Amino acid sequence: MDALNLISRSQGFYVRAIDDGPIEEWPEFFTDDAFYKVTTADNHSRGLPAGVIWANNKAMLKDRVSALKDANIYEPHAYRHMLGQPAILEEDRTGATSETSFLVLRVTGNGPTDVFASGRYLDEYVFIDGKALLKKRIVVCDSSRIDTLLVLPL
Amino acid sequence: MDALNLISRSQGFYVRAIDDGPIEEWPEFFTDDAFYKVTTADNHSRGLPAGVIWANNKAMLKDRVSALKDANIYEPHAYRHMLGQPAILEEDRTGATSETSFLVLRVTGNGPTDVFASGRYLDEYVFIDGKALLKKRIVVCDSSRIDTLLVLPL
Amino acid sequence: MDALNLISRSQGFYVRAIDDGPIEEWPEFFTDDAFYKVTTADNHSRGLPAGVIWANNKAMLKDRVSALKDANIYEPHAYRHMLGQPAILEEDRTGATSETSFLVLRVTGNGPTDVFASGRYLDEYVFIDGKALLKKRIVVCDSSRIDTLLVLPL
Repeated sequence: MDALNLISRSQGFYVRAIDDGPIEEWPEFFTDDAFYKVTTADNHSRGLPAGVIWANNKAMLKDRVSALKDANIYEPHAYRHMLGQPAILEEDRTGATSETSFLVLRVTGNGPTDVFASGRYLDEYVFIDGKALLKKRIVVCDSSRIDTLLVLPL
Repeated sequence: MDALNLISRSQGFYVRAIDDGPIEEWPEFFTDDAFYKVTTADNHSRGLPAGVIWANNKAMLKDRVSALKDANIYEPHAYRHMLGQPAILEEDRTGATSETSFLVLRVTGNGPTDVFASGRYLDEYVFIDGKALLKKRIVVCDSSRIDTLLVLPL
Repeated sequence: MDALNLISRSQGFYVRAIDDGPIEEWPEFFTDDAFYKVTTADNHSRGLPAGVIWANNKAMLKDRVSALKDANIYEPHAYRHMLGQPAILEEDRTGATSETSFLVLRVTGNGPTDVFASGRYLDEYVFIDGKALLKKRIVVCDSSRIDTLLVLPL
């Protein structure tokens, strides 16, 4: 399969794990030594290093899942990730670099659904056993208002 | 073509039939004995059988289209479906099981555009003559507020 | 690669150029003699010729980019395009005709993110050197409220 197919398949499962569970599967889309960061477009364009969320291995992502499950007790919302088509910047048989737009809806039980976050993924994928795993994902949020993102994986 | 390609192609046409017409094509994405249900995430997770919409063959879907055309007289809105990439759970040469996130925008002529519905499709596809047909689609809406969905196919 | 793959790849880069830049790349997704028009669903269905934006060659699109860059001085918003899967109506080795749904989010620095525009692309692609270029794109916006679109490419 080509890079677009591998990345699309991976991203379909990625958002499913976050939105519909089991959330424990979310770290499994990353390599053991993966780098993951959530930041804002403003910080990213100015080259500021501090992200909202930062991890440089899969174990830290697993810790986040535990924190998320605790936090969810107090946050009865549902989220729905929608991803665009990846723009594949580089690709070979072993991996690819790509960028993908995303939006996240927040759904309250009986209230309105609104756009919670939007932005783009800056990704480095490695292809292992016919699957695309994230070696690096920088999540660049369009808005600077993302404090509640502290619990939600993007 | 592989399962992702077949499903993506089918879904591109599926939403076009609903949003841009002809709406009469909508039932043609299903097999004759297809099962189609619209329910809420809350009902679905609790295993409650009653869905908002329920059909167990294509003829019932055609009846819905007729009802929709009548209802549209009173409802001058446009809708826009956006689908994510499918997460393909099982696949072989004859068909696939997949899940796909969706959102539906509601557009009023001169008013704001808002998110009308979001959720996920739980699908069983069969591949016939190079096309993916739905043998089963359960539409699980994120929100519990979906009464007006009674006329709109999802 | 097949038509879906070529179109999906092109569309991933197309929205990236508009949302994340460099915006100068946007005209490069069109052929030299491309036709590009932005109109409303109401005007389109009534066959009215006047579009909001109109161009019949790439040079005119480049002029728009210059106008956009000037206008951006006064408009500190970010936009995020999300595209659906293309419905491929016709295809052969040299090109394809397709339709694709889109939505555009508008993000203000510290304010809410809302749906700025939605609609569908009516496209004619030609495949050249393994890439899909637009020979024709008619952008049909769902809403009739699109005056501010005068600066934003869709």
